[in-house]
Amino acid sequence: MEKIQLDPSSFVPLYQQLKEHIIEKIDKKIWKPGEKIYSENQLYKIFGVSRNTAIKAIEDLVQEGILYRVQGKGTFVSLPKIEQSLSAFYSFSQVLSKKGLKPKDIVLDVKIIEASHKVAKELEIEKGDKVVALQRLRHANEEPIILETSYLPKNIIDDADKLKLVGYTPLYDILNIHFNVVVNTAKETFEPILIREEEKHHLEVEAGSPALLLERIAYDTSKRPVEFCKSIVRGDRCKFYTELI
Amino acid sequence: MEKIQLDPSSFVPLYQQLKEHIIEKIDKKIWKPGEKIYSENQLYKIFGVSRNTAIKAIEDLVQEGILYRVQGKGTFVSLPKIEQSLSAFYSFSQVLSKKGLKPKDIVLDVKIIEASHKVAKELEIEKGDKVVALQRLRHANEEPIILETSYLPKNIIDDADKLKLVGYTPLYDILNIHFNVVVNTAKETFEPILIREEEKHHLEVEAGSPALLLERIAYDTSKRPVEFCKSIVRGDRCKFYTELI
Repeated sequence: MEKIQLDPSSFVPLYQQLKEHIIEKIDKKIWKPGEKIYSENQLYKIFGVSRNTAIKAIEDLVQEGILYRVQGKGTFVSLPKIEQSLSAFYSFSQVLSKKGLKPKDIVLDVKIIEASHKVAKELEIEKGDKVVALQRLRHANEEPIILETSYLPKNIIDDADKLKLVGYTPLYDILNIHFNVVVNTAKETFEPILIREEEKHHLEVEAGSPALLLERIAYDTSKRPVEFCKSIVRGDRCKFYTELI
Repeated sequence: MEKIQLDPSSFVPLYQQLKEHIIEKIDKKIWKPGEKIYSENQLYKIFGVSRNTAIKAIEDLVQEGILYRVQGKGTFVSLPKIEQSLSAFYSFSQVLSKKGLKPKDIVLDVKIIEASHKVAKELEIEKGDKVVALQRLRHANEEPIILETSYLPKNIIDDADKLKLVGYTPLYDILNIHFNVVVNTAKETFEPILIREEEKHHLEVEAGSPALLLERIAYDTSKRPVEFCKSIVRGDRCKFYTELI
């Protein structure tokens, strides 16, 4: 077994040094995605640190999505996070396809409901007005990544069943083809949240895991809001980037 | 006391209806920031829901940063989240000033350390090369909002003490004035994380609260990376937005 020396006299805490060492191994592809790494018991012996230090390093890396645990099997290296640009209109399916990951959307629900205060405000309609709510679970390589609910004014979507095609055709293409609506601008907000009990089964992560809430309002060419969309994005599988110039 | 009817036959869960009702009250400024709202005990009587439903609604709103609790005093309406644009180079101090909030930076630490694997990779230097680490706590109206650590190559920053001026002068102005470095582009990544034990005292939130990790690499006019910056942003106090065109 290799023997690596951490530096107890450094101002960098030992668990942090251990984390950096593991990240370096993964970054240099010495440890590859899906590969099993040392157990906490092996780790603390190899590095000559306390058991708590080894546990803290691993827990941090699991929480950050760099490692994952399989009950009764051990700790493994995660796939790299899926990176999505914030600077441009992105299509999640296109992002995945470019990275060689297979996109799949499962429609969980399509129904007509009354707009809540919040939905009405974003869509610039009256509270209680009819809207179509489309809920879907977006996958990458069979893994659930995003739980997404779109609200669209019923007076635009006269045949809600058409939205079920979203498993095969991008939503904005459906809007264009079937409803003659062209989306060309959007506003998005991003804030960190915790996965809730009612979301954990869909996204296959524990309640309390870090996630990103994206809220998007999409506008058509006459600046009319045509979709309000709430996406809950798994933080262990996705990150976002932007370039500032 | 007012009597409001929730709809148990709706497909929208009761706690969600209760949340929406509270959000609407806040949104319409009927309940204002800093104002105390009903206790869980009052809430469940007023709305005729179970105590658990009232507790779940309040807990959700606290976690989302819409309400906050003061031990022994009750539940209050939060200030609106500070919104920052993702589309352009933003200065946190400028964002605050525009919103009428008073910015304040406290320098926690300035020291010279050896670059870790990660810092070296981002700054395109060798692991172990000397870097200046500047840690500061950024406030809005005396409230800590962002815990930020900047790493800058020591061969650029020949006098690290100059960075302590950052409490009074923006970092990029210091780089320009004292080190003849002009930052004009940057890359940023965003991912959701949980506040850790060692961060909770600085940011005055509980461990496990949702936060955003921003990592920025800033480049000078000759495309040389001059700063790698990790910011931990309180999720209950900040959100980010972008406009897609």
